[in-house]
Amino acid sequence: MKRLLVIGIGAGHPDYITLQAVKALNRVDVFFLMDKGQAKASLIDLRRDICERYITDPAYRFVEAHSPERERGDVDYNASVDDLNRAKQATFERLINEELADGQCGGFLVWGDPALYDSTIRILQAILLSGRCAFEFEVIPGITSVQALAAQHKVPLNGIGRSVEITTGRRLAAGQVSDADSVVVMLDAQDAYRQVADPQTEIFWGAYLGTPDEILISGRLQDVADEIGRVRQAARAEHGWIMDTYLLRKP
Amino acid sequence: MKRLLVIGIGAGHPDYITLQAVKALNRVDVFFLMDKGQAKASLIDLRRDICERYITDPAYRFVEAHSPERERGDVDYNASVDDLNRAKQATFERLINEELADGQCGGFLVWGDPALYDSTIRILQAILLSGRCAFEFEVIPGITSVQALAAQHKVPLNGIGRSVEITTGRRLAAGQVSDADSVVVMLDAQDAYRQVADPQTEIFWGAYLGTPDEILISGRLQDVADEIGRVRQAARAEHGWIMDTYLLRKP
Repeated sequence: MKRLLVIGIGAGHPDYITLQAVKALNRVDVFFLMDKGQAKASLIDLRRDICERYITDPAYRFVEAHSPERERGDVDYNASVDDLNRAKQATFERLINEELADGQCGGFLVWGDPALYDSTIRILQAILLSGRCAFEFEVIPGITSVQALAAQHKVPLNGIGRSVEITTGRRLAAGQVSDADSVVVMLDAQDAYRQVADPQTEIFWGAYLGTPDEILISGRLQDVADEIGRVRQAARAEHGWIMDTYLLRKP
Repeated sequence: MKRLLVIGIGAGHPDYITLQAVKALNRVDVFFLMDKGQAKASLIDLRRDICERYITDPAYRFVEAHSPERERGDVDYNASVDDLNRAKQATFERLINEELADGQCGGFLVWGDPALYDSTIRILQAILLSGRCAFEFEVIPGITSVQALAAQHKVPLNGIGRSVEITTGRRLAAGQVSDADSVVVMLDAQDAYRQVADPQTEIFWGAYLGTPDEILISGRLQDVADEIGRVRQAARAEHGWIMDTYLLRKP
Protein backbone atom coordinates (compact mmCIF):
# COMPACT_ATOMS: atom_id res chain seq x y z
CA MET A 1 0.00 0.00 0.00
CA LYS A 2 1.12 3.54 -0.77
CA ARG A 3 0.75 6.15 1.94
CA LEU A 4 0.28 9.90 1.54
CA LEU A 5 0.77 12.55 4.20
CA VAL A 6 -0.88 15.93 3.78
CA ILE A 7 1.25 18.04 6.06
CA GLY A 8 0.28 21.50 7.26
CA ILE A 9 3.55 23.38 7.65
CA GLY A 10 2.10 26.53 9.16
CA ALA A 11 1.92 30.09 7.97
CA GLY A 12 5.34 31.39 7.07
CA HIS A 13 7.67 31.05 10.05
CA PRO A 14 9.49 27.69 10.23
CA ASP A 15 8.84 27.61 14.00
CA TYR A 16 5.09 27.47 13.36
CA ILE A 17 5.56 23.83 12.43
CA THR A 18 4.26 21.25 14.91
CA LEU A 19 6.18 18.30 16.27
CA GLN A 20 3.60 16.08 14.61
CA ALA A 21 4.51 17.68 11.27
CA VAL A 22 8.23 17.24 11.94
CA LYS A 23 7.67 13.53 12.60
CA ALA A 24 5.56 13.29 9.44
CA LEU A 25 8.24 15.02 7.33
CA ASN A 26 10.67 12.36 8.48
CA ARG A 27 8.44 9.54 7.16
CA VAL A 28 8.24 10.91 3.62
CA ASP A 29 10.17 9.35 0.72
CA VAL A 30 8.93 11.70 -2.01
CA PHE A 31 7.70 15.27 -1.60
CA PHE A 32 5.36 16.58 -4.27
CA LEU A 33 5.81 20.32 -4.81
CA MET A 34 2.85 21.88 -6.57
CA ASP A 35 3.28 25.65 -6.33
CA LYS A 36 2.41 27.95 -9.13
CA GLY A 37 2.47 31.54 -10.21
CA GLN A 38 4.56 34.42 -9.01
CA ALA A 39 4.96 33.20 -5.46
CA LYS A 40 6.34 29.92 -6.77
CA ALA A 41 10.07 30.36 -6.37
CA SER A 42 10.04 31.77 -2.86
CA LEU A 43 7.38 29.36 -1.61
CA ILE A 44 9.19 26.32 -2.97
CA ASP A 45 12.40 27.62 -1.41
CA LEU A 46 10.64 27.88 1.94
CA ARG A 47 9.47 24.28 1.65
CA ARG A 48 12.93 23.01 0.77
CA ASP A 49 14.26 25.00 3.69
CA ILE A 50 11.76 23.34 6.03
CA CYS A 51 12.76 19.89 4.79
CA GLU A 52 16.46 20.62 5.18
CA ARG A 53 15.91 22.05 8.62
CA TYR A 54 13.79 19.28 10.11
CA ILE A 55 14.53 16.02 8.29
CA THR A 56 17.36 14.03 9.80
CA ASP A 57 17.86 11.40 7.05
CA PRO A 58 18.33 13.13 3.69
CA ALA A 59 17.16 10.07 1.70
CA TYR A 60 14.08 11.89 0.45
CA ARG A 61 13.53 13.46 -2.94
CA PHE A 62 11.40 16.21 -4.45
CA VAL A 63 9.15 15.93 -7.47
CA GLU A 64 8.05 19.27 -8.86
CA ALA A 65 4.88 19.14 -10.90
CA HIS A 66 3.45 21.80 -13.10
CA SER A 67 0.44 22.94 -11.14
CA PRO A 68 -2.45 23.91 -13.38
CA GLU A 69 -3.71 27.47 -12.92
CA ARG A 70 -7.29 28.55 -12.54
CA GLU A 71 -8.73 30.33 -15.54
CA ARG A 72 -9.13 34.00 -14.61
CA GLY A 73 -11.16 36.84 -16.00
CA ASP A 74 -14.78 36.65 -17.04
CA VAL A 75 -15.49 33.02 -16.15
CA ASP A 76 -17.76 31.33 -13.63
CA TYR A 77 -15.71 31.02 -10.44
CA ASN A 78 -17.05 27.67 -9.26
CA ALA A 79 -16.79 26.15 -12.73
CA SER A 80 -13.21 27.36 -13.10
CA VAL A 81 -12.33 25.89 -9.69
CA ASP A 82 -13.96 22.60 -10.70
CA ASP A 83 -11.93 22.56 -13.92
CA LEU A 84 -8.81 23.34 -11.98
CA ASN A 85 -9.44 20.60 -9.46
CA ARG A 86 -10.03 18.04 -12.22
CA ALA A 87 -6.72 19.00 -13.79
CA LYS A 88 -5.02 18.82 -10.39
CA GLN A 89 -6.61 15.44 -9.77
CA ALA A 90 -5.11 14.08 -13.01
CA THR A 91 -1.72 15.47 -11.98
CA PHE A 92 -1.97 13.91 -8.52
CA GLU A 93 -2.98 10.53 -9.99
CA ARG A 94 0.02 10.58 -12.30
CA LEU A 95 2.38 11.50 -9.44
CA ILE A 96 1.03 8.78 -7.17
CA ASN A 97 1.10 6.15 -9.92
CA GLU A 98 4.47 7.02 -11.45
CA GLU A 99 6.57 8.53 -8.69
CA LEU A 100 5.66 6.42 -5.68
CA ALA A 101 6.40 2.70 -5.24
CA ASP A 102 4.31 0.37 -3.13
CA GLY A 103 5.21 0.77 0.52
CA GLN A 104 6.55 4.27 -0.05
CA CYS A 105 5.29 7.43 1.54
CA GLY A 106 4.48 10.60 -0.42
CA GLY A 107 4.17 14.01 1.14
CA PHE A 108 2.26 17.16 0.25
CA LEU A 109 3.43 20.27 2.11
CA VAL A 110 0.54 22.67 2.56
CA TRP A 111 0.88 26.27 3.76
CA GLY A 112 -1.19 26.89 6.85
CA ASP A 113 -3.67 24.08 7.49
CA PRO A 114 -4.79 21.58 4.83
CA ALA A 115 -8.41 21.96 6.03
CA LEU A 116 -8.71 25.67 5.23
CA TYR A 117 -8.86 26.92 1.63
CA ASP A 118 -6.65 24.19 0.27
CA SER A 119 -7.75 21.58 -2.24
CA THR A 120 -5.39 18.70 -1.43
CA ILE A 121 -7.77 16.79 0.89
CA ARG A 122 -10.70 17.22 -1.49
CA ILE A 123 -8.65 15.99 -4.46
CA LEU A 124 -7.30 12.94 -2.62
CA GLN A 125 -10.81 12.00 -1.47
CA ALA A 126 -12.03 12.34 -5.08
CA ILE A 127 -9.23 10.08 -6.32
CA LEU A 128 -10.04 7.42 -3.70
CA LEU A 129 -13.70 7.62 -4.64
CA SER A 130 -12.85 7.20 -8.33
CA GLY A 131 -10.86 4.04 -7.56
CA ARG A 132 -8.11 5.07 -10.00
CA CYS A 133 -5.36 4.87 -7.35
CA ALA A 134 -5.21 3.03 -4.07
CA PHE A 135 -3.51 4.62 -1.06
CA GLU A 136 -4.03 5.53 2.56
CA PHE A 137 -3.64 9.09 3.69
CA GLU A 138 -3.30 11.15 6.85
CA VAL A 139 -3.78 14.85 7.48
CA ILE A 140 -1.51 16.83 9.80
CA PRO A 141 -2.96 20.19 10.85
CA GLY A 142 -0.87 23.38 10.76
CA ILE A 143 -1.02 26.93 12.09
CA THR A 144 -3.00 29.07 9.64
CA SER A 145 -2.34 32.68 8.70
CA VAL A 146 -5.58 33.45 10.58
CA GLN A 147 -3.99 32.26 13.81
CA ALA A 148 -0.70 34.01 13.07
CA LEU A 149 -2.67 37.19 12.43
CA ALA A 150 -4.52 37.05 15.76
CA ALA A 151 -1.35 36.15 17.66
CA GLN A 152 0.71 38.96 16.15
CA HIS A 153 -2.03 41.53 16.77
CA LYS A 154 -2.66 40.01 20.23
CA VAL A 155 -6.42 39.94 19.71
CA PRO A 156 -9.00 37.19 20.10
CA LEU A 157 -10.76 36.12 16.90
CA ASN A 158 -14.19 35.95 18.52
CA GLY A 159 -16.17 38.30 20.71
CA ILE A 160 -17.33 36.82 24.04
CA GLY A 161 -19.76 34.01 23.23
CA ARG A 162 -19.98 35.19 19.60
CA SER A 163 -19.31 33.64 16.20
CA VAL A 164 -16.45 34.10 13.78
CA GLU A 165 -16.94 33.82 10.05
CA ILE A 166 -13.97 32.87 7.92
CA THR A 167 -14.53 33.87 4.33
CA THR A 168 -12.90 35.01 1.11
CA GLY A 169 -12.26 38.46 -0.32
CA ARG A 170 -14.44 37.44 -3.24
CA ARG A 171 -17.43 36.81 -0.97
CA LEU A 172 -16.86 39.98 1.04
CA ALA A 173 -16.74 42.03 -2.17
CA ALA A 174 -19.98 40.37 -3.32
CA GLY A 175 -21.71 41.15 -0.01
CA GLN A 176 -22.00 37.41 0.72
CA VAL A 177 -21.11 37.62 4.39
CA SER A 178 -23.24 37.01 7.44
CA ASP A 179 -23.81 39.51 10.23
CA ALA A 180 -21.15 37.88 12.44
CA ASP A 181 -19.39 40.62 14.36
CA SER A 182 -16.00 39.03 13.64
CA VAL A 183 -15.17 38.21 10.03
CA VAL A 184 -11.81 36.87 8.89
CA VAL A 185 -11.02 37.43 5.23
CA MET A 186 -8.57 35.30 3.26
CA LEU A 187 -7.57 35.20 -0.41
CA ASP A 188 -8.49 38.84 -1.02
CA ALA A 189 -7.05 39.89 -4.38
CA GLN A 190 -9.20 43.00 -4.68
CA ASP A 191 -8.96 45.09 -1.46
CA ALA A 192 -12.49 44.03 -0.53
CA TYR A 193 -12.18 45.69 2.93
CA ARG A 194 -12.82 48.97 1.09
CA GLN A 195 -16.37 47.81 0.48
CA VAL A 196 -17.30 47.39 4.14
CA ALA A 197 -20.15 49.81 4.79
CA ASP A 198 -19.41 50.90 8.36
CA PRO A 199 -16.19 52.96 8.52
CA GLN A 200 -16.10 52.41 12.30
CA THR A 201 -15.35 48.72 11.69
CA GLU A 202 -11.99 47.75 13.14
CA ILE A 203 -9.52 45.96 10.89
CA PHE A 204 -6.52 43.88 11.95
CA TRP A 205 -4.52 43.38 8.79
CA GLY A 206 -1.36 41.35 8.21
CA ALA A 207 0.81 40.38 5.26
CA TYR A 208 3.66 37.85 4.96
CA LEU A 209 2.74 36.77 8.48
CA GLY A 210 5.46 34.98 10.38
CA THR A 211 8.16 35.93 7.87
CA PRO A 212 10.85 38.63 8.15
CA ASP A 213 8.72 40.73 5.76
CA GLU A 214 5.67 40.69 8.05
CA ILE A 215 3.54 43.86 8.00
CA LEU A 216 0.81 44.58 10.57
CA ILE A 217 -1.69 47.44 10.45
CA SER A 218 -4.75 47.88 12.65
CA GLY A 219 -7.32 50.55 13.38
CA ARG A 220 -10.74 51.76 12.27
CA LEU A 221 -11.30 51.38 8.53
CA GLN A 222 -11.89 55.12 8.18
CA ASP A 223 -8.39 55.71 9.56
CA VAL A 224 -6.33 52.91 8.01
CA ALA A 225 -8.03 51.63 4.83
CA ASP A 226 -6.06 53.99 2.58
CA GLU A 227 -2.82 53.14 4.34
CA ILE A 228 -3.44 49.41 3.95
CA GLY A 229 -4.19 49.93 0.25
CA ARG A 230 -0.94 51.84 -0.28
CA VAL A 231 1.22 49.48 1.77
CA ARG A 232 -0.35 46.46 0.11
CA GLN A 233 0.29 47.75 -3.39
CA ALA A 234 3.88 48.71 -2.62
CA ALA A 235 4.63 45.36 -0.95
CA ARG A 236 3.13 43.45 -3.84
CA ALA A 237 5.24 45.42 -6.30
CA GLU A 238 8.37 44.85 -4.23
CA HIS A 239 7.95 41.08 -3.67
CA GLY A 240 6.09 40.20 -6.87
CA TRP A 241 3.33 38.57 -4.75
CA ILE A 242 1.48 39.11 -1.51
CA MET A 243 -0.27 36.87 1.00
CA ASP A 244 -2.42 38.83 3.41
CA THR A 245 -5.27 38.17 5.79
CA TYR A 246 -7.42 40.34 7.99
CA LEU A 247 -9.95 40.33 10.77
CA LEU A 248 -12.88 42.75 10.64
CA ARG A 249 -14.64 43.54 13.91
CA LYS A 250 -17.90 45.42 14.03
CA PRO A 251 -17.98 48.45 16.33
CA MET B 1 9.87 44.74 32.85
CA LYS B 2 7.85 41.58 33.36
CA ARG B 3 7.04 39.46 30.35
CA LEU B 4 4.09 37.14 29.83
CA LEU B 5 3.75 34.43 27.20
CA VAL B 6 0.31 33.16 26.27
CA ILE B 7 1.18 29.81 24.76
CA GLY B 8 -1.21 27.76 22.68
CA ILE B 9 -0.31 24.15 23.39
CA GLY B 10 -2.66 22.58 20.88
CA ALA B 11 -5.67 20.35 21.22
CA GLY B 12 -4.83 17.28 23.25
CA HIS B 13 -1.91 15.43 21.68
CA PRO B 14 1.51 16.61 22.89
CA ASP B 15 2.78 16.42 19.28
CA TYR B 16 0.32 19.15 18.28
CA ILE B 17 2.64 21.65 19.95
CA THR B 18 4.64 23.93 17.65
CA LEU B 19 8.37 24.53 17.79
CA GLN B 20 7.57 28.16 18.55
CA ALA B 21 5.63 26.99 21.61
CA VAL B 22 8.47 24.69 22.70
CA LYS B 23 10.89 27.63 22.53
CA ALA B 24 8.41 29.77 24.45
CA LEU B 25 8.00 27.11 27.18
CA ASN B 26 11.75 27.19 27.67
CA ARG B 27 11.70 30.94 28.38
CA VAL B 28 9.15 30.72 31.19
CA ASP B 29 10.11 31.06 34.88
CA VAL B 30 6.62 30.69 36.34
CA PHE B 31 3.66 28.85 34.82
CA PHE B 32 0.22 29.95 35.95
CA LEU B 33 -2.23 27.04 35.96
CA MET B 34 -5.82 28.20 35.98
CA ASP B 35 -7.97 25.15 35.28
CA LYS B 36 -11.23 24.55 36.98
CA GLY B 37 -14.07 22.10 37.32
CA GLN B 38 -14.24 18.42 36.61
CA ALA B 39 -11.65 18.41 33.87
CA LYS B 40 -9.18 20.06 36.21
CA ALA B 41 -7.01 17.21 37.35
CA SER B 42 -6.48 15.58 33.99
CA LEU B 43 -5.94 18.88 32.17
CA ILE B 44 -3.40 20.11 34.70
CA ASP B 45 -1.65 16.75 34.45
CA LEU B 46 -1.45 17.16 30.67
CA ARG B 47 0.12 20.60 31.09
CA ARG B 48 2.69 19.35 33.57
CA ASP B 49 3.43 16.51 31.19
CA ILE B 50 4.01 18.97 28.33
CA CYS B 51 6.40 21.02 30.48
CA GLU B 52 8.34 17.94 31.58
CA ARG B 53 8.52 16.66 28.05
CA TYR B 54 9.70 19.82 26.32
CA ILE B 55 11.55 22.01 28.84
CA THR B 56 15.26 21.28 29.05
CA ASP B 57 16.13 23.33 32.18
CA PRO B 58 13.83 22.34 35.07
CA ALA B 59 14.32 25.68 36.89
CA TYR B 60 10.69 26.67 36.33
CA ARG B 61 7.84 26.50 38.82
CA PHE B 62 4.07 26.21 38.76
CA VAL B 63 1.60 28.45 40.52
CA GLU B 64 -1.90 27.02 40.69
CA ALA B 65 -4.61 29.58 41.15
CA HIS B 66 -8.21 29.01 42.04
CA SER B 67 -9.95 29.87 38.80
CA PRO B 68 -13.34 31.49 39.36
CA GLU B 69 -16.26 29.68 37.76
CA ARG B 70 -19.01 31.23 35.70
CA GLU B 71 -22.36 31.43 37.42
CA ARG B 72 -24.65 28.90 35.74
CA GLY B 73 -28.37 28.46 35.57
CA ASP B 74 -30.90 31.19 35.00
CA VAL B 75 -28.54 34.14 34.58
CA ASP B 76 -27.68 36.43 31.68
CA TYR B 77 -24.88 34.71 29.79
CA ASN B 78 -22.93 37.80 28.79
CA ALA B 79 -23.24 39.35 32.24
CA SER B 80 -22.04 36.13 33.89
CA VAL B 81 -19.06 36.02 31.50
CA ASP B 82 -18.28 39.66 32.29
CA ASP B 83 -18.42 38.90 36.02
CA LEU B 84 -16.21 35.90 35.50
CA ASN B 85 -13.68 37.86 33.49
CA ARG B 86 -13.52 40.59 36.15
CA ALA B 87 -12.83 37.96 38.78
CA LYS B 88 -10.23 36.34 36.54
CA GLN B 89 -8.65 39.74 35.92
CA ALA B 90 -8.23 40.29 39.67
CA THR B 91 -6.66 36.83 39.95
CA PHE B 92 -4.28 37.52 37.06
CA GLU B 93 -3.27 40.90 38.55
CA ARG B 94 -2.47 39.25 41.87
CA LEU B 95 -0.42 36.52 40.18
CA ILE B 96 1.54 38.99 38.07
CA ASN B 97 2.18 41.32 41.01
CA GLU B 98 2.96 38.70 43.65
CA GLU B 99 4.44 35.74 41.83
CA LEU B 100 6.58 37.34 39.15
CA ALA B 101 9.70 39.45 39.74
CA ASP B 102 10.92 42.16 37.41
CA GLY B 103 12.76 40.62 34.47
CA GLN B 104 10.97 37.30 34.92
CA CYS B 105 8.78 35.57 32.40
CA GLY B 106 5.33 34.18 33.23
CA GLY B 107 3.52 31.63 31.09
CA PHE B 108 -0.12 30.80 30.52
CA LEU B 109 -0.68 27.45 28.81
CA VAL B 110 -3.84 27.57 26.74
CA TRP B 111 -5.54 24.54 25.18
CA GLY B 112 -5.91 24.94 21.46
CA ASP B 113 -5.24 28.51 20.33
CA PRO B 114 -5.40 31.53 22.65
CA ALA B 115 -7.33 33.47 19.97
CA LEU B 116 -10.34 31.13 19.89
CA TYR B 117 -12.81 30.96 22.80
CA ASP B 118 -10.23 31.69 25.43
CA SER B 119 -10.23 34.76 27.66
CA THR B 120 -6.52 35.12 28.47
CA ILE B 121 -5.69 37.67 25.74
CA ARG B 122 -8.79 39.73 26.52
CA ILE B 123 -7.98 39.78 30.24
CA LEU B 124 -4.34 40.76 29.73
CA GLN B 125 -5.35 43.59 27.38
CA ALA B 126 -7.86 44.79 30.00
CA ILE B 127 -5.18 44.76 32.70
CA LEU B 128 -2.79 46.75 30.51
CA LEU B 129 -5.55 49.24 29.76
CA SER B 130 -6.33 49.62 33.47
CA GLY B 131 -2.70 50.41 34.19
CA ARG B 132 -2.75 48.25 37.34
CA CYS B 133 0.18 46.09 36.21
CA ALA B 134 2.94 46.76 33.70
CA PHE B 135 4.18 43.96 31.45
CA GLU B 136 4.81 42.99 27.87
CA PHE B 137 3.17 39.96 26.39
CA GLU B 138 3.35 37.71 23.37
CA VAL B 139 0.86 35.23 21.93
CA ILE B 140 1.91 31.89 20.50
CA PRO B 141 -0.78 30.24 18.35
CA GLY B 142 -1.67 26.57 18.75
CA ILE B 143 -3.57 23.87 16.87
CA THR B 144 -7.24 24.08 17.82
CA SER B 145 -9.67 21.19 18.29
CA VAL B 146 -11.36 22.48 15.11
CA GLN B 147 -8.21 21.69 13.14
CA ALA B 148 -7.70 18.36 14.90
CA LEU B 149 -11.30 17.50 14.05
CA ALA B 150 -10.90 18.24 10.34
CA ALA B 151 -7.55 16.43 10.17
CA GLN B 152 -8.84 13.30 11.89
CA HIS B 153 -11.96 13.16 9.72
CA LYS B 154 -9.84 14.07 6.65
CA VAL B 155 -12.29 16.72 5.51
CA PRO B 156 -11.86 20.38 4.54
CA LEU B 157 -13.57 22.89 6.81
CA ASN B 158 -14.86 25.02 3.93
CA GLY B 159 -16.69 24.25 0.72
CA ILE B 160 -14.99 25.50 -2.46
CA GLY B 161 -14.92 29.30 -2.28
CA ARG B 162 -17.40 29.24 0.64
CA SER B 163 -17.41 30.53 4.21
CA VAL B 164 -17.01 28.71 7.50
CA GLU B 165 -18.73 29.91 10.64
CA ILE B 166 -17.20 28.98 13.97
CA THR B 167 -19.75 29.28 16.74
CA THR B 168 -20.90 27.93 20.08
CA GLY B 169 -23.43 25.27 21.02
CA ARG B 170 -25.33 27.99 22.85
CA ARG B 171 -25.74 30.03 19.66
CA LEU B 172 -26.67 27.01 17.56
CA ALA B 173 -29.33 26.03 20.11
CA ALA B 174 -30.68 29.59 20.02
CA GLY B 175 -30.83 29.59 16.22
CA GLN B 176 -28.20 32.35 16.09
CA VAL B 177 -26.23 30.95 13.21
CA SER B 178 -25.80 32.28 9.69
CA ASP B 179 -26.62 30.35 6.53
CA ALA B 180 -22.98 29.37 5.99
CA ASP B 181 -22.91 25.86 4.56
CA SER B 182 -20.11 24.87 6.93
CA VAL B 183 -20.59 25.55 10.63
CA VAL B 184 -18.15 24.47 13.33
CA VAL B 185 -19.62 24.19 16.81
CA MET B 186 -17.55 24.44 19.97
CA LEU B 187 -18.45 24.51 23.66
CA ASP B 188 -21.69 22.61 23.17
CA ALA B 189 -22.96 21.47 26.56
CA GLN B 190 -26.47 20.70 25.36
CA ASP B 191 -26.35 18.49 22.24
CA ALA B 192 -27.39 21.44 20.09
CA TYR B 193 -26.83 19.43 16.88
CA ARG B 194 -30.18 17.81 17.64
CA GLN B 195 -31.84 21.13 16.87
CA VAL B 196 -30.56 21.41 13.31
CA ALA B 197 -33.64 21.43 11.08
CA ASP B 198 -32.38 19.53 8.04
CA PRO B 199 -31.74 15.85 8.91
CA GLN B 200 -29.70 15.51 5.70
CA THR B 201 -27.04 17.78 7.23
CA GLU B 202 -23.73 15.98 7.55
CA ILE B 203 -22.00 16.03 10.92
CA PHE B 204 -18.32 15.33 11.64
CA TRP B 205 -18.12 14.91 15.39
CA GLY B 206 -15.10 14.36 17.59
CA ALA B 207 -14.38 14.15 21.32
CA TYR B 208 -11.10 14.12 23.27
CA LEU B 209 -9.42 14.88 19.94
CA GLY B 210 -5.76 14.02 19.73
CA THR B 211 -5.83 11.98 22.95
CA PRO B 212 -5.88 8.18 23.36
CA ASP B 213 -9.60 8.52 24.20
CA GLU B 214 -10.45 10.18 20.88
CA ILE B 215 -13.88 9.32 19.44
CA LEU B 216 -14.92 10.17 15.87
CA ILE B 217 -18.41 9.81 14.40
CA SER B 218 -19.62 11.14 11.06
CA GLY B 219 -22.65 10.81 8.83
CA ARG B 220 -26.01 12.40 8.15
CA LEU B 221 -27.72 13.73 11.27
CA GLN B 222 -30.72 11.47 10.67
CA ASP B 223 -28.39 8.46 10.84
CA VAL B 224 -25.94 9.37 13.59
CA ALA B 225 -27.48 12.01 15.90
CA ASP B 226 -28.81 9.39 18.32
CA GLU B 227 -25.54 7.50 18.31
CA ILE B 228 -23.58 10.70 19.06
CA GLY B 229 -25.96 11.48 21.90
CA ARG B 230 -25.49 8.03 23.43
CA VAL B 231 -21.73 7.92 22.96
CA ARG B 232 -21.37 11.45 24.30
CA GLN B 233 -23.35 10.71 27.44
CA ALA B 234 -21.48 7.48 28.12
CA ALA B 235 -18.06 9.08 27.57
CA ARG B 236 -18.93 11.99 29.82
CA ALA B 237 -20.03 9.59 32.55
CA GLU B 238 -16.86 7.55 32.17
CA HIS B 239 -14.36 10.45 32.15
CA GLY B 240 -16.27 12.90 34.34
CA TRP B 241 -15.95 15.53 31.60
CA ILE B 242 -16.04 15.82 27.83
CA MET B 243 -14.53 18.16 25.27
CA ASP B 244 -16.11 17.76 21.86
CA THR B 245 -16.39 19.72 18.64
CA TYR B 246 -18.19 19.20 15.39
CA LEU B 247 -18.54 20.40 11.84
CA LEU B 248 -21.99 20.64 10.27
CA ARG B 249 -22.18 20.65 6.48
CA LYS B 250 -25.38 21.44 4.64
CA PRO B 251 -26.47 18.91 2.02
